[in-house]
Amino acid sequence: MKADKPTFPLNAWYAAAYDVELGRHLLPRTVCNQKIVMYRRLDGQAVALHDACWHRLLPLSQGRLQGDDVVCGYHGLVYNPEGQCVRMPSLQKINASACVRSFPLVEKHRFIWLWMGDPALADPALVPDMHWNDDPAWAGDGKLITVQCDYRLVIDNLMDLTHETYVHGSSIGNEAVVEAPFVVTHDAQFVTVTRWMDNIEAPPFWAAQILHARGYNGPVDRWQIIRFEAPATVTIDVGVAEAGSGAIPTKGQAGDRSQGVNGFVLNTITPETDGSCHYFWAFARNYCLGEQALTHQLREGVARIFREDEVVLEAQQQALRDHPDKQFHNLNIDAGAVRSRHLIDQMISKEAQTPAVIPIREVA
Amino acid sequence: MKADKPTFPLNAWYAAAYDVELGRHLLPRTVCNQKIVMYRRLDGQAVALHDACWHRLLPLSQGRLQGDDVVCGYHGLVYNPEGQCVRMPSLQKINASACVRSFPLVEKHRFIWLWMGDPALADPALVPDMHWNDDPAWAGDGKLITVQCDYRLVIDNLMDLTHETYVHGSSIGNEAVVEAPFVVTHDAQFVTVTRWMDNIEAPPFWAAQILHARGYNGPVDRWQIIRFEAPATVTIDVGVAEAGSGAIPTKGQAGDRSQGVNGFVLNTITPETDGSCHYFWAFARNYCLGEQALTHQLREGVARIFREDEVVLEAQQQALRDHPDKQFHNLNIDAGAVRSRHLIDQMISKEAQTPAVIPIREVA
Amino acid sequence: MKADKPTFPLNAWYAAAYDVELGRHLLPRTVCNQKIVMYRRLDGQAVALHDACWHRLLPLSQGRLQGDDVVCGYHGLVYNPEGQCVRMPSLQKINASACVRSFPLVEKHRFIWLWMGDPALADPALVPDMHWNDDPAWAGDGKLITVQCDYRLVIDNLMDLTHETYVHGSSIGNEAVVEAPFVVTHDAQFVTVTRWMDNIEAPPFWAAQILHARGYNGPVDRWQIIRFEAPATVTIDVGVAEAGSGAIPTKGQAGDRSQGVNGFVLNTITPETDGSCHYFWAFARNYCLGEQALTHQLREGVARIFREDEVVLEAQQQALRDHPDKQFHNLNIDAGAVRSRHLIDQMISKEAQTPAVIPIREVA
Repeated sequence: MKADKPTFPLNAWYAAAYDVELGRHLLPRTVCNQKIVMYRRLDGQAVALHDACWHRLLPLSQGRLQGDDVVCGYHGLVYNPEGQCVRMPSLQKINASACVRSFPLVEKHRFIWLWMGDPALADPALVPDMHWNDDPAWAGDGKLITVQCDYRLVIDNLMDLTHETYVHGSSIGNEAVVEAPFVVTHDAQFVTVTRWMDNIEAPPFWAAQILHARGYNGPVDRWQIIRFEAPATVTIDVGVAEAGSGAIPTKGQAGDRSQGVNGFVLNTITPETDGSCHYFWAFARNYCLGEQALTHQLREGVARIFREDEVVLEAQQQALRDHPDKQFHNLNIDAGAVRSRHLIDQMISKEAQTPAVIPIREVA
Repeated sequence: MKADKPTFPLNAWYAAAYDVELGRHLLPRTVCNQKIVMYRRLDGQAVALHDACWHRLLPLSQGRLQGDDVVCGYHGLVYNPEGQCVRMPSLQKINASACVRSFPLVEKHRFIWLWMGDPALADPALVPDMHWNDDPAWAGDGKLITVQCDYRLVIDNLMDLTHETYVHGSSIGNEAVVEAPFVVTHDAQFVTVTRWMDNIEAPPFWAAQILHARGYNGPVDRWQIIRFEAPATVTIDVGVAEAGSGAIPTKGQAGDRSQGVNGFVLNTITPETDGSCHYFWAFARNYCLGEQALTHQLREGVARIFREDEVVLEAQQQALRDHPDKQFHNLNIDAGAVRSRHLIDQMISKEAQTPAVIPIREVA
Repeated sequence: MKADKPTFPLNAWYAAAYDVELGRHLLPRTVCNQKIVMYRRLDGQAVALHDACWHRLLPLSQGRLQGDDVVCGYHGLVYNPEGQCVRMPSLQKINASACVRSFPLVEKHRFIWLWMGDPALADPALVPDMHWNDDPAWAGDGKLITVQCDYRLVIDNLMDLTHETYVHGSSIGNEAVVEAPFVVTHDAQFVTVTRWMDNIEAPPFWAAQILHARGYNGPVDRWQIIRFEAPATVTIDVGVAEAGSGAIPTKGQAGDRSQGVNGFVLNTITPETDGSCHYFWAFARNYCLGEQALTHQLREGVARIFREDEVVLEAQQQALRDHPDKQFHNLNIDAGAVRSRHLIDQMISKEAQTPAVIPIREVA
């Protein structure tokens, strides 16, 4: 599915793979409507090239690795990691224009990040903050799911957690989430939605966590601090502490979370096409760090919750196709999502004013 | 599939479900290109709403019932049977414009009928006549099949039964059907095709019926009196009687069918999309009323016959797609179908002149 | 898939079936975007008609044979082998314009050839030369595969056999193919690519053949003489001989192949739609003629090789769809393919200048 107008900015770092997905093999993946092939060089460095041979368009991912280079599986053209063709069949002299686009790449926080727009703007300092994903003070793991929906529907989903009550009633949702007030703040890059639930019964998931980690099974103070980083990353600071133990911040002063359990739901959503996305997520915790079984259990537990979202998100995308004349209506619970989409729209608009410098296809 | 110009009128009652399909659960169905969700209130009354939440378009059929209301499965908006939103998450005051379209509904003759056009015109007296379907003088049962073809191809099929000879040769067709003359009459709402076959060998289906009901196995007088009721209902008075026993009417005088067996093939075909339809049918008989096994046998026997039609109808629809430049040619056997389509076209034209009053989407 | 501009000429003979596929049954097949039904008359003569009834478009292939005629499976219209309707239901007088298009047909060299364009131009002398396929001096067999790609991608594939090294490395490819020089010649109808590989190690396939047929397992002289016959036939004269035994022609003098084994790869590729094709192939040899097991083994061995091509060809077609803005680049290995496409383009252009005489649909 290709939209009439851009649905995402190109000048941004997008997660294209988990680090462990790459190796000495050719991994094809569509990112931002582009066919990409990824692999690791002999020294382990990751490479991302346009997945279409310059000669006859066969996906390079159907070829094979030869040292640091890729050999096309049809006529044997060889490309180096920069995308330059370095061997042609039956030819001594190589056409200098023969190349495929190579994408700026950074490996950080366990993800392979690609810059899909103007390479001159590809500043590694702009990679989204997902440091919990490889910080020794945190333990966890995650997954990739490819969802048949516009990536912005996932952003909407994450920026309003009242849906937990209706979609995830058996694990993390209960009425307290809907009833609790929340505060939305933002700047040019981030949108934050903060919700504190004071002295409530913990939902099943958190009741189990605080019992396991701290032997506590009474009422809790619960928090959800959702942070959107434009254009497609959402980190959520979540947890519960013994009710009244001081976790709730007051007048600019940080709370004391020592009587609680804390996790970060890390999400970065990469457009695959205009109507589908690669949803990378992880759950990191700061308790019981050495328990591998708990890591396993949490990963599968969160995966179950995300599958509930997947059903809703794909139904919503289908509904958008079924009702091309319909628009979303917004409620005040959507304030975080509306603000996040506004930041995305600004990035897209900014690019629309300077499209000439972006080599959408190849640098040849 | 959505056509360029209307293929059906909206100001009409269409069967959306068999009565027994509805209950205390949410039934999604597409009717006339519209997503609909249906259910029964606590008092049993049937409800039909647009199957897309006002807020974010998630199908309401993915939510749940709460008393007489529907709760959206994403953010918990609650709609009453009139489609008005009566609860929003985290909000005391409800946006009065928050509603989904509710469809006029009549339950009659074992079907749930919806009015898809201007509610002001939804006169229950206009529900098509299918009274045989719950008349104690008749016994029978039916089914719903969803066929991948324009509903008008089914009308064509039913209005010319010479196809029985070629499509249903092993059950109800034989050469006599093709050879017998027929008469077509019509008014502004009905088209009738009458065919009498005088002193013929009964086809296998009818031979079995008259033998079972009356112990007779000789030649018969056979009749097929097809009645189209615009835009999408066809009832067919069918049967055989002992040859020469007086069943054939003469000079405006009704015949004596006492030495025969009589059935009604009841058909009402509801557009699902422009290229598919819900085909509701039943077979009612006026003999051996108490024999449940016969009802079962007839229902399955007729279902087998209709599956033969389904193959032809879907192949014909595919042929229409394959040959966008081709038109149907008409023979004199098509007189009933041509006249029926003419009535449909008149209804569509009439609506095209007054489109403003029809709330295709929602009343908000 | 229907292209915006013609991808193939219509005034040409295209193989529509292997001879053995036709019999006393109705065989539907799409050829050049046209629905066709084929069968044999009582005298064995093959017939090809447009597969859509004049009356209501039902595919005639869903009907049945009645002597030399076809009976439509919906309303019983009967067509003779010329496509003229000779019986209509309930009608004494037949509408003279009631007919379906009949296609000029020649059965030759084990294929059923259809002429899809102007019947007045259908000269049987123009049927492509595939005589090896039923010449008693040659033995072999073949298959039909329907490939989801433009037929011209198959032509490209066959006109440049350097791909053997990369696609068929385990059977017929090795480095020698890429390294050997080749010569391209052409006239208005044929393009020939000749490649001789002097004193090389035979690739696995040919090593097995010359060992089996001649007990020889040393170095060989290998040849590939590819001949394209516009618009869609490619015959390849292939083989190996004992190195230095005189097989290589010199100064216009034919070589002596008596110390070698010779095969012909026969290919004719018929557009099914603009994005798919019927690929008919056979492999004929002039050694060990009576060995039925060898025929079987070669047919299955070549089928395995062609399946490797099928994967590449369908991936290439998908890549063309994924990159509508991309064009092929040509290398000197593509000289034969480029020249062949040029002949195809000339045929298409010529037709575009005289389109009026071509009855694309029917002669009525």
